[in-house]
Amino acid sequence: MSMDSLAEDKIFVGWDALTALETFLQEEVPQNAKIILLTDHTVKQHCLGKLFGSNQRLHDARIYEIPEGESAKTFHQAYDLCRHLLSDGIEKDTLLINLGGGVVCDLGGFVASIYKRGLGFIHIPTTLLAQVDAAIGGKTAVNLDTYKNQIGTFAKPAGVFVYPLFLNSLNERQIRAGFAEIIKIALIADQALWHLIRQYDFPALKTISFEGLLWSRMIRDSIGKKLEIVRQDPFEKHYRKGLNFGHTVGHAVETYSLQHDRDPLLHGEAVAAGMICETYLSWKHNLISQPERDEVIGYLSGMFDHYPIAGETHDEMLKIMQADKKNKGGKICFVLLDGMGRFQTDVSFDPKIIFESLSYYNSLQA
Amino acid sequence: MSMDSLAEDKIFVGWDALTALETFLQEEVPQNAKIILLTDHTVKQHCLGKLFGSNQRLHDARIYEIPEGESAKTFHQAYDLCRHLLSDGIEKDTLLINLGGGVVCDLGGFVASIYKRGLGFIHIPTTLLAQVDAAIGGKTAVNLDTYKNQIGTFAKPAGVFVYPLFLNSLNERQIRAGFAEIIKIALIADQALWHLIRQYDFPALKTISFEGLLWSRMIRDSIGKKLEIVRQDPFEKHYRKGLNFGHTVGHAVETYSLQHDRDPLLHGEAVAAGMICETYLSWKHNLISQPERDEVIGYLSGMFDHYPIAGETHDEMLKIMQADKKNKGGKICFVLLDGMGRFQTDVSFDPKIIFESLSYYNSLQA
Repeated sequence: MSMDSLAEDKIFVGWDALTALETFLQEEVPQNAKIILLTDHTVKQHCLGKLFGSNQRLHDARIYEIPEGESAKTFHQAYDLCRHLLSDGIEKDTLLINLGGGVVCDLGGFVASIYKRGLGFIHIPTTLLAQVDAAIGGKTAVNLDTYKNQIGTFAKPAGVFVYPLFLNSLNERQIRAGFAEIIKIALIADQALWHLIRQYDFPALKTISFEGLLWSRMIRDSIGKKLEIVRQDPFEKHYRKGLNFGHTVGHAVETYSLQHDRDPLLHGEAVAAGMICETYLSWKHNLISQPERDEVIGYLSGMFDHYPIAGETHDEMLKIMQADKKNKGGKICFVLLDGMGRFQTDVSFDPKIIFESLSYYNSLQA
Repeated sequence: MSMDSLAEDKIFVGWDALTALETFLQEEVPQNAKIILLTDHTVKQHCLGKLFGSNQRLHDARIYEIPEGESAKTFHQAYDLCRHLLSDGIEKDTLLINLGGGVVCDLGGFVASIYKRGLGFIHIPTTLLAQVDAAIGGKTAVNLDTYKNQIGTFAKPAGVFVYPLFLNSLNERQIRAGFAEIIKIALIADQALWHLIRQYDFPALKTISFEGLLWSRMIRDSIGKKLEIVRQDPFEKHYRKGLNFGHTVGHAVETYSLQHDRDPLLHGEAVAAGMICETYLSWKHNLISQPERDEVIGYLSGMFDHYPIAGETHDEMLKIMQADKKNKGGKICFVLLDGMGRFQTDVSFDPKIIFESLSYYNSLQA
């Protein structure tokens, strides 16, 4: 897999992304500028050595470690990090490197965008989810209590360095969860990618090396397609909303799980459930045929474990959806598939239809 | 005084600014969009009636009241407001109106810029300081503990409506403090304005009606000159730093006072002390002549009460300056006058010269 800069956005994908990082640090970061590296414990264990090996400048970086998992992505964590930066005397000419998954990239990007009105920052995403989604597109976020991504900014990283071999540090569950975002982008915007990926079930996928061409292509195509959408509407006024396919119900399922489960769903797992419900809604709205519906739902329900959302949870799910950022005029707005590889935004439904889609999902349990 | 739109920035200054507001609300804000009005108790008492009188749409606005004064401009207050917005079901198509002084505009702008990655917002500044400075230029901010404006964003309001008659609600101290920012802009960028204002001492100024031409000209010229500077460098990479004249020492004095005084200095009062120190440094650096130094310092020390900063406070002042946002490479960077009506940025000094300027200021006490 060769290194590839996705032009203006300074996104480097491939086995030599770390060489690109080294060049970036030498050429774009003044010699006397400080570097802060934000990460979590597991990522530090698995990825820091590799990073240090190829980058002399990083040896002097100060390392900030945050707790692992979604529960660290809070306003209070952002506040603590800002205080930490201030007490370490960190000035505006500092570079913040976010090394980790979606939580590290979202939170670190947010902190960088508000501390002294903006530090320079780069992402080195280490999970599949972060590589194809969270680190791409210039959004930052923290959660507000248990409501996902309600606080955030639009802020573009100075560079994103996607090194697929970091994915070797992931467990199966994390890979599968990240894969949900690749499926999403294929469904809304890339029929060729969809035809490619649906040839693989998960047992097949996980035997394929991250160094091989298949992963290379899937990661690069997902990033490229996401960037195409983002460039048309960077501040999500209209078209970019399409990227939220599966996320209206998905965020509700994820939030519900964070509130109730000891071992909550990962973001991608919840989005997979959300995509099933919203594919059902797309069919219900006559935007896709029944065979298309069954093809998509068959693939998703084959790949992801079922998460029970019984009838008594539906009112709570609806309440969470009512806080969704895309809503307008008091209505929950969905992104729907409009045929394969296309989408429609801002479609709202009567709550009873939304409940129907949740019940449909729940009935899929074997 | 006639209404005047400062073109692209949608800033309306004058006695018919409230008419402009009414037009704005009718034409730019969808009929079904909610309106939130952020203010504090005193402003609500003095200004809300006038505002309601001219704007039918505002009668349905939800009013959020924050505590008065600088101590409300915190990260936690921003968090509380975000939670409040979320629990009120506020969506992205809502307009936030910041009605108040610098605290309301800075805090409200910050909240609007991060809640769901950005609500539309407008400023209706009601203090002189907010009218000529805080509401102009697209900066938002909250303090980090007692360190001023360490957290914030660049976010442009959809409109700023400057209605000088609101200034009738201010006490003398507030008017004088706001006037410090007019003096600042005159010193760094507008010799004609400086020649105008130095004809007036404070007893003279306060007898002049806010409806008259003098205030109209001073407010409009200050805003216009600030916008000129901001447009050249909106994200404060270089030239815009000039607007921080007086603010390096000024923020330190203000922070010190917030930490130690029961009735702390107002921002403008601290900036006046800061401008005296930094005018002294400008002379020390051979950028202005002794007569120019004495002209500026004579005017400032005649207009503002002296605030004692004895030698034992200087180490603490220096420590606060070391957290200043403009610093680079570990050095405190000052803006200095470079002749009258011009400035230089990024000048650093040995701490002993900084202490000398503080001692000089302190020696001015009659």
